[in-house]
Amino acid sequence: MNNFTWFIPTIVMFGKGTATKIGDQIAGIGAKKIMLIMGGQSVFKSGAYEQVAESLKRNKIEFIEMTGVKSNPRVEFVREAIARLAVTPVDVIVPVGGGSVYDTAKAIAAGAKYNGDIWDLVKGKASISKTLPVMGVVTASATSSEMNNIAVISNHETEEKLSFTSPLLYPRLSIIDPELQYTLPERQTVAGGIDAMAHVMERYFEGNEIPELLWDQHEVFLRSMLRCIPRLRANPRDYDARAEYAWTAALCHNGSLSCGLKNRGDFSSHKLGHALSLFYDTPHGDSLSIMMPAWIEYVSKFNPLPLERFTKNIMGLDELRSTFRSWGAPVTLREIKVPECDIERIVDNVAKLGPIGTFKILEREDIIEITKISW
Amino acid sequence: MNNFTWFIPTIVMFGKGTATKIGDQIAGIGAKKIMLIMGGQSVFKSGAYEQVAESLKRNKIEFIEMTGVKSNPRVEFVREAIARLAVTPVDVIVPVGGGSVYDTAKAIAAGAKYNGDIWDLVKGKASISKTLPVMGVVTASATSSEMNNIAVISNHETEEKLSFTSPLLYPRLSIIDPELQYTLPERQTVAGGIDAMAHVMERYFEGNEIPELLWDQHEVFLRSMLRCIPRLRANPRDYDARAEYAWTAALCHNGSLSCGLKNRGDFSSHKLGHALSLFYDTPHGDSLSIMMPAWIEYVSKFNPLPLERFTKNIMGLDELRSTFRSWGAPVTLREIKVPECDIERIVDNVAKLGPIGTFKILEREDIIEITKISW
Repeated sequence: MNNFTWFIPTIVMFGKGTATKIGDQIAGIGAKKIMLIMGGQSVFKSGAYEQVAESLKRNKIEFIEMTGVKSNPRVEFVREAIARLAVTPVDVIVPVGGGSVYDTAKAIAAGAKYNGDIWDLVKGKASISKTLPVMGVVTASATSSEMNNIAVISNHETEEKLSFTSPLLYPRLSIIDPELQYTLPERQTVAGGIDAMAHVMERYFEGNEIPELLWDQHEVFLRSMLRCIPRLRANPRDYDARAEYAWTAALCHNGSLSCGLKNRGDFSSHKLGHALSLFYDTPHGDSLSIMMPAWIEYVSKFNPLPLERFTKNIMGLDELRSTFRSWGAPVTLREIKVPECDIERIVDNVAKLGPIGTFKILEREDIIEITKISW
Repeated sequence: MNNFTWFIPTIVMFGKGTATKIGDQIAGIGAKKIMLIMGGQSVFKSGAYEQVAESLKRNKIEFIEMTGVKSNPRVEFVREAIARLAVTPVDVIVPVGGGSVYDTAKAIAAGAKYNGDIWDLVKGKASISKTLPVMGVVTASATSSEMNNIAVISNHETEEKLSFTSPLLYPRLSIIDPELQYTLPERQTVAGGIDAMAHVMERYFEGNEIPELLWDQHEVFLRSMLRCIPRLRANPRDYDARAEYAWTAALCHNGSLSCGLKNRGDFSSHKLGHALSLFYDTPHGDSLSIMMPAWIEYVSKFNPLPLERFTKNIMGLDELRSTFRSWGAPVTLREIKVPECDIERIVDNVAKLGPIGTFKILEREDIIEITKISW
């Protein structure tokens, strides 16, 4: 077991009716004015907006709104919000949405306190020394952004989708009300679940020696998602399945499944997937249902042990692919209409990150092989 | 799945050599003077004292020492330390030890900022509004006091062993170096492991509907202890087993295994065991290896389902008892030489807490039955 530091200072309020408490919590830290960050129409459909706005008004908290965060959130949006805050400062950034909205809120919270362009912070050219507090409401569970210190932002100008981290990026508060996820499209529930599973798999297939305790924990969360997704496809309003799904997703990438690992996960699947999101705006979950099995297939040739354990305790790789497919998720590049002639472009984008991964260090030729498998 | 709040603000530094960082961490919050809280000789034997003292000196941190915390720590010790702090104030309370030392440190940290007798806070007659920060080093894992907001203190004058909690009782920092546990007596390793298992069992056998995710998590930690204890009996210097044991113990009672439960565990076994510790100074772990199986045997008559699942996925109740016995832990009151005529006295002490438990609400007559089984 390797040394580690465990630190997750976020307060999580979880369960039915909890979104109505957001105003009380924000007022509790003395804040008077906040910026709401949201995506599209889903916050209205789910009722989240109404609950949050009512709670803020009841607590006499002024709010300004920034709507329109898309999946694979973009740096331009972050810059606009920061520019707005320069004119109208606020005390707290309040994401109401899923991982993209949370990531955007974190980037805004850091950028608002940085005297320069936010992309410097994403690129690690400058370090985060101060942020506005982030206190949010989760309406789509997947990335665990609500409980971790990571934000992923895309820059189309530079053709980069990058993640950045800081201990200051943990939200101060995240409210997870599973009922707000009843109205999510089935595709999003599936993609979010696959993303959460991928967060486990990146660790399960890290390639180093994994403490038995950790592997056992990983398998609990994989089984949980494999149990919840079919239940939610059958009945999107199954509260217990929504709740288990939401809590599982939060725990899969808050760092607790890395404790004792040599690295904190491999993350090649994510990096391969980021290229798809960047070029084709492929939803993050879809990029993973395609790239993750291809990556596992390729790297397991060099060390078959983790896949043998996975096959014995969870399922084989073919069964994993057919499970994803049965949920309506793509498992090949062809299915999402990536032309074969684009493989080179994808490989170039990933390869420019330098050799990636921990299970097997992936050079350009390895990335070509994986991309071919995924095609 | 029931609503819950998750909040564990403690920073945990885990692994080899981490105790040598305590001074840097304390200096990092600007503290100049601290009070060290310790038990007996074990901190010298393990090398913990030397490492901590050296680290404090290197960081020019002055320290005063209070040694002599015993298992089932007493309020008199806490009062003495608080009286001493009134004369010589410090910035941080630094436990170096196991659960008893940590619990004592927490009580001192709260009492030092309370204008009245510490027993008022334990009894809940007054609430904790401020504490000194607690930053410690774990040298015996078991209770998860290093990562939770609970302290258990005994008062022999009033014949009470009581736990008290507050969000302010989380340590600010806990350093867990598994190597410092190499020199623990085998009996303590066994008792600590059983205590950690009991923290899981109190939840597993809460009696309410348990979300599948939680039950699965519980089983992972039970299996972990069942795997580590025999390895450590065979080789107390098995680093990976020490590490897995220590991290498992920390996670078993930091609240994360209660998320979504109706209650936060039953805790009848603990309350039954507290009476033994109070009257016979029975080590906490021993009190549990005796009382827990008796309690499960009794309450399972009223709802056999959890025991059926436990039997299928972990082991039967007879096997649990014989496992404890094979580790040298007592499983009956007779073995620890409690005379049969004392049963009444034990029952009286537990019954005065009022009806206890959640799996089955235990009245006086139930407590008599369980105590008889345990004899």
